[in-house]
Amino acid sequence: MKILDSFRIVLVEPQHPGNIGAAARAMKAMGLSNLVLVAPRSFPHADATARAAGADDVLQRAQSVNSLAQAVADCQLVIGASARPRRLNWQNMNPRAAAEEASAVAYKMNGQTALVFGRERSGLTNGELDICHRHLMIPANPDYASLNLAAAVQVVCYELRMAALGTKAGAETYMGEGDTLARTEDIEGFYTHLKDVLVAGEFLDPEQPKLLMRRLRRLFNRTQLESTEVNILRGILTALDPRKQAYSNPKMSLKGSD
Amino acid sequence: MKILDSFRIVLVEPQHPGNIGAAARAMKAMGLSNLVLVAPRSFPHADATARAAGADDVLQRAQSVNSLAQAVADCQLVIGASARPRRLNWQNMNPRAAAEEASAVAYKMNGQTALVFGRERSGLTNGELDICHRHLMIPANPDYASLNLAAAVQVVCYELRMAALGTKAGAETYMGEGDTLARTEDIEGFYTHLKDVLVAGEFLDPEQPKLLMRRLRRLFNRTQLESTEVNILRGILTALDPRKQAYSNPKMSLKGSD
Repeated sequence: MKILDSFRIVLVEPQHPGNIGAAARAMKAMGLSNLVLVAPRSFPHADATARAAGADDVLQRAQSVNSLAQAVADCQLVIGASARPRRLNWQNMNPRAAAEEASAVAYKMNGQTALVFGRERSGLTNGELDICHRHLMIPANPDYASLNLAAAVQVVCYELRMAALGTKAGAETYMGEGDTLARTEDIEGFYTHLKDVLVAGEFLDPEQPKLLMRRLRRLFNRTQLESTEVNILRGILTALDPRKQAYSNPKMSLKGSD
Repeated sequence: MKILDSFRIVLVEPQHPGNIGAAARAMKAMGLSNLVLVAPRSFPHADATARAAGADDVLQRAQSVNSLAQAVADCQLVIGASARPRRLNWQNMNPRAAAEEASAVAYKMNGQTALVFGRERSGLTNGELDICHRHLMIPANPDYASLNLAAAVQVVCYELRMAALGTKAGAETYMGEGDTLARTEDIEGFYTHLKDVLVAGEFLDPEQPKLLMRRLRRLFNRTQLESTEVNILRGILTALDPRKQAYSNPKMSLKGSD
C-alpha cells in the first residue's frame, strides 16, 4: 500500500540489537518498511536478525545515520515518542491522532512522516524532542508505563495502518462473500411459519399472544438474517412441527383417533 | 480504572512461558490485570517472571484452568482472536470495534468481556472459535501477518484502554433497560439443548453433522442473546421436542406400540 511507504520509523541509539529486530517485525506485520537507525550500538547483529523473524528485508533496507537531524531531513512531519509529559507544554498527541495527521500529510501532499523513538531506558533528549514537530504519548498506565521499545513501535505502526486503511471502528460487515441478506418478505414468511408452529406446539396461545412474537422478532431482526439462515430455520420448524411428527410417525398417528 | 477490570485476557495453551510474561507486561502497561491461562505448558516459570518485567503481580493473580469454556463461563461477551478469515464467515471485528463493544458491555451492564488468544503457532481451534461470540482480526499485512502473541495482546489492550478512556455516549447496543445479556454458560446450555432436539427431530444427523451447529452458533452468537431470550428459546425447544410430543399426547402415544 503506497501510503504506508510515506511513514518512516526512526530508532535513536537503540542499545539492544534484539529490539531493532523486534521493531522491524512489528513494522512489517503492519506493512511498513522504512526503518532508519540513528547511531545504533550494534548493527547489523545476529540478535536483530533472530528477533526480526522473517522481516529481515526491513533490516537489510534499514539505513544507519549519525544524527536525528539527518534521519528526518527530508520529512514533512516529525513526531517524537515521549514516555512522559515534558516541562514545556508541547503538543502531546496520542498514537491515533499522530497516525491521522501522518496519513493526512501523505494523502494531501504526498509528504513523508517520521515517527521517532528514543533509547530503551532514557527515551529522547530534550534537544531531540525539540527537533520534532509533535510529541506522541501512548496513554499508558501512569503507575506502570513500561512499554518496551518494540511494543511502542507495534502500537504506533498499528495506528498508522488503521489510518492508512481508513478504518473506522464498528460497522464491520457481518457478511462474507457469497452470503446474501434475506429479503424482508422471506423473513416475514419465517415469522408466520414460526408463529404457526408455536401455536401448534401450544407454546403460543393465539388468544393471549402477549409479547412473545415481538420478542422473537426483536431477537432475529437484530441479527440481520441471511437467506441461507432463513432456510435453515424454516427447515428446523418443519422438522419440529408437532403436526408433522404426528403425521409422519405411523406408530403415533395412525391410531390417533381411537 | 474500574472499567478496565471488566476485561479479561485469556491465553489458550501458551507454549512459551516467556510469552505469558510479555503478555502480562503489555496488559499492565495498559492498566489491565485479569489474566486467565488455559492449560499453559509451563507456568509458573522463571522466563515468565523475567519477561513480565515488574508486572509480576499480574502473573501472581493469573488463574489457570483446564478449558476455554471454564475460562469464559461467567463472561457476557467472548471475543476470539483469529489470524485469518475462516470458512464460515463469522463476524470479524478489528481491535477497535472489539474494544468499543467490550466497553459498552462494561458500561451499560457491568458485564465482563474475555479477549481470547490462541496458541503461538496454530491459534485457536475451530471448536474454540465456536465458543466465541465475535472474532477479532488485527488487520495485519496479508503478506506477513506475523505478530507474536505479546504484540497481539499489546495492540488489543491498547485499544481496550483507548476505549475505556474515551467511551462517553458509547456504542449503540441493542439492549433495553433492565435486560441482561446471557452468560456464556447459559448460551452453551441452549446450544446443547438445541442440538439434542434437532437430533431427536431428525433434522441433525449426529453421524453427519456437517456445518449445521456452527451455522446456528454463528447466527445466535452475533445477536448477543439476553437471559430472557435464552429462556424463551429453551421453552420453545421443550415445547417442540418430538419426544415430549409423543409422551404428552395420549391420543398419539398410548397406542404407539400397536
